Formats: sequence, C-alpha cells, structure tokens
Amino acid sequence: MKIAVNRNLLSANQERAAGNRRLFLRHGLRVVNVMSSPGAGKTTLLSKTAAYIAGRVPVAVLVGDISTETDAEKIRNAAPGVQAEQIVTEKYGSACRLDARMISEALPRLDLARARLLFIENVGNLVCPAGLYLGEDRRVVLLSVPEGDDKVIKYPVIFRDADCLLITKVDLAPACDFDAAKVRKEARAIKPSMEVLSISARTGEGLERWFHWLEERVTGTEKGGE
Amino acid sequence: MKIAVNRNLLSANQERAAGNRRLFLRHGLRVVNVMSSPGAGKTTLLSKTAAYIAGRVPVAVLVGDISTETDAEKIRNAAPGVQAEQIVTEKYGSACRLDARMISEALPRLDLARARLLFIENVGNLVCPAGLYLGEDRRVVLLSVPEGDDKVIKYPVIFRDADCLLITKVDLAPACDFDAAKVRKEARAIKPSMEVLSISARTGEGLERWFHWLEERVTGTEKGGE
Repeated sequence: MKIAVNRNLLSANQERAAGNRRLFLRHGLRVVNVMSSPGAGKTTLLSKTAAYIAGRVPVAVLVGDISTETDAEKIRNAAPGVQAEQIVTEKYGSACRLDARMISEALPRLDLARARLLFIENVGNLVCPAGLYLGEDRRVVLLSVPEGDDKVIKYPVIFRDADCLLITKVDLAPACDFDAAKVRKEARAIKPSMEVLSISARTGEGLERWFHWLEERVTGTEKGGE
Repeated sequence: MKIAVNRNLLSANQERAAGNRRLFLRHGLRVVNVMSSPGAGKTTLLSKTAAYIAGRVPVAVLVGDISTETDAEKIRNAAPGVQAEQIVTEKYGSACRLDARMISEALPRLDLARARLLFIENVGNLVCPAGLYLGEDRRVVLLSVPEGDDKVIKYPVIFRDADCLLITKVDLAPACDFDAAKVRKEARAIKPSMEVLSISARTGEGLERWFHWLEERVTGTEKGGE
C-alpha cells in the first residue's frame, strides 16, 4: 500500500518535472539543482556565485526552506538585480525536500525571459531530495569539510546522481580530519564522470574553477558536449 | 489521499512506539533519541559518552544509517563491552529516519537486561526524524558550529521537541561566525525548558556537563523530577 502510494507520487512528480523541463527548454534556460546537508554553505555559495556570474549570465534563484523566507532575501541583497524567490515547503506538507510541483508553482514568480541560468537551492537534507527530479539539467551536491569524509559512502544515493561535488569550507581543513583524496575517489567510484572541486566561499579558494565549470554548462562548451 | 496515508503511518508508528515504551519500562531502561544533520558529530559523541559512562551505567546503542554498518562498529571499538547494533534503514524503504518498527525489530539483538541506558542514534537528517516517536524518554539534538547559527529558526520542528541541545565542535568557533547566545535564546524561545550545552568531543570541552546531565536523567535526580 505504502509502496503503491510512493510510486504514484513519484510518477506524478516525473510528469510535473517533464512539464518544468519543457518550459526551461522553451526559454533556453539552464537549470542547476543544488543540494546538501543543512549548513554546508548553499546560500553563501549561491550569493557569491550569483553576484559574480550575473554580470555575464542573467541568473535567477529559487530557494527551498521549511518555514523561513530569509535566504532568497540574502541572495537578493548579495547580488542586486538577481531574481531570487523563496519556496516555503511546509505549506505543501512535505517539508523535507523540493518537488517538481513546488517548482512549477513558483516559476510564475520569476521573469524567465530575463534569465539564462536558474539555480534551485534544495532544502538542507542529504537524503530526501535525491529521489526527486525537478526538471533540472545538472545536480550539484555540496559536502562541507567539517561534516566528515565518510559521507559519500554513508549517503550514496544523492552523490550517485550528482554531476558536480563541491567540497566546501576547505579553509577549515587544518582543524578537521578530512581526506579530500578519499572523498574524490569514492565519489568517482559511484559516478566516474563526476567533477569534484574543493572550494571556500570564505577565502575565495577554488571559486574560479566552479564559476568556469558553470559557465561551460551554460554556454554548452564543456568537453563531450550534451 | 496522501494526508490520509501519512496519518495511518503516523498512527501505526505511535502504536509501535507505545509497545517499545512498555518494553523499556519493563526493563527499567532510560532511552535517549539522538538527532542531528549529517556530520554534526553524533557517532563521535556517543563513542566518547559510551566509553565514559559505561563504567557507571550499563549502556547500549542502536545506530541508524542508510546503507552502512560502520558506526556501530566504531562505537564498539571505542567503548569495548558496550552493546552497539546497526539498523540499516534502506532495507525498510524509508531511509531518511528511524521509526518505531525499526527499533522494535532491532531490540531483540540487544540484551536489555544488561543495559540501563539506551542511546538511539538517528539517521543524519534535521527534518524527517522530528515527527516520529520511537518510545524514548529524551530527545537530544546536536547542532555543530560550522552548520551556522540560523538552524534553530530554519528547522524549528526538530528543536521544538528536544530536551537538550548540544552545540558541538565549539573548537571550530574561532574559524566560524557562530553566535551561541543567539542560538540559546532562539532554542529557549521555542522550548523554555531546553538544556543547551556547548561541547567539543575533540578537546573534551563541556563533556563533563553533558555526562552529568545524562546521569541525572538515568538516576532520576534531575531538578523537577519526571
């Protein structure tokens, strides 16, 4: 019974996600779903990324949170002129992740004609967002150094579908026991094509490579194409 | 439809949890449900806690993880003689948190007559474990300093039901922007009786107060009683 219901929910989500996808393609919009544990640094990263990249590529952001509306505002303040809208998931009853319906209902709040790249910041959760396709082109997962280097093995599903793993807060590495080479190896073992980048939004370390990776995805110039 | 199903699942869980509760009472066992984001330090804390407290109080541990079996082993290695058993949640289909059934099916693997205090380490997730009662006496939530000081406001449900908030990894505070006084105030605003302790399992800071808080709960000597 429970399994049947879950299947129906998943298949309804797939239909909604396909609808989102058609809309994104119609607008020539590239869409990146950004996922991580709570506090791995999604909002800070997206604030810096939007501020940097908005001068080259028109950016919009949808931010999922359970009950607060502060993160979209943070991004708007950090990157003036960037469209950023909040999705409050508890209104939908399933607070632990975004789904395709939440996205489709939030999209009318954005002027998609003014955007070329859309970030979707998922709810802070390393489990539930993994299974739900939103219509995105790319999935990026953040893993912060203080979370520990065993997380790819412990939460494999979310990493299996990721195109890019960002190891964040590398400025804290001297104070933490974190083996980045081990994480890189484990991530590539479950997804050989995964890009793995080490960054610190605080010090700026590695951000250029991340911006470059993004720009290649937007302009379609990455190796291998699509 | 979805809401009706959720209600049925919740009510089935309540029944199972009540059964667990009766079993715990029959064995005179105090039970603590330990929750946090991935990587906030649950396993390290429980390893140190089990090693310290096992000399005074017989301890057992159940550890929930999605697909790995390593954490129970870590605890057994750190605290020889302590019973620690793993629950692999993906076998149940709902990998994102423990529920009362998983606990009731794992309990026969422990010798409850040899335990006075049972820790249940939940899956790393700041959302889904909140709603599901397992039959425990107390709920402890860890929030690590690098996760940021906005998490009580952003994930209120899990904190609302917590008896104790452990601010962990305080040795990283100099490198992070974390206002512990703000977190304490926000936590007490949603649960006035909440104990808030700052600790570092790495340096040992604050652990004595945590052990003391636990021992009071086990011996029933805390202020106000139960």
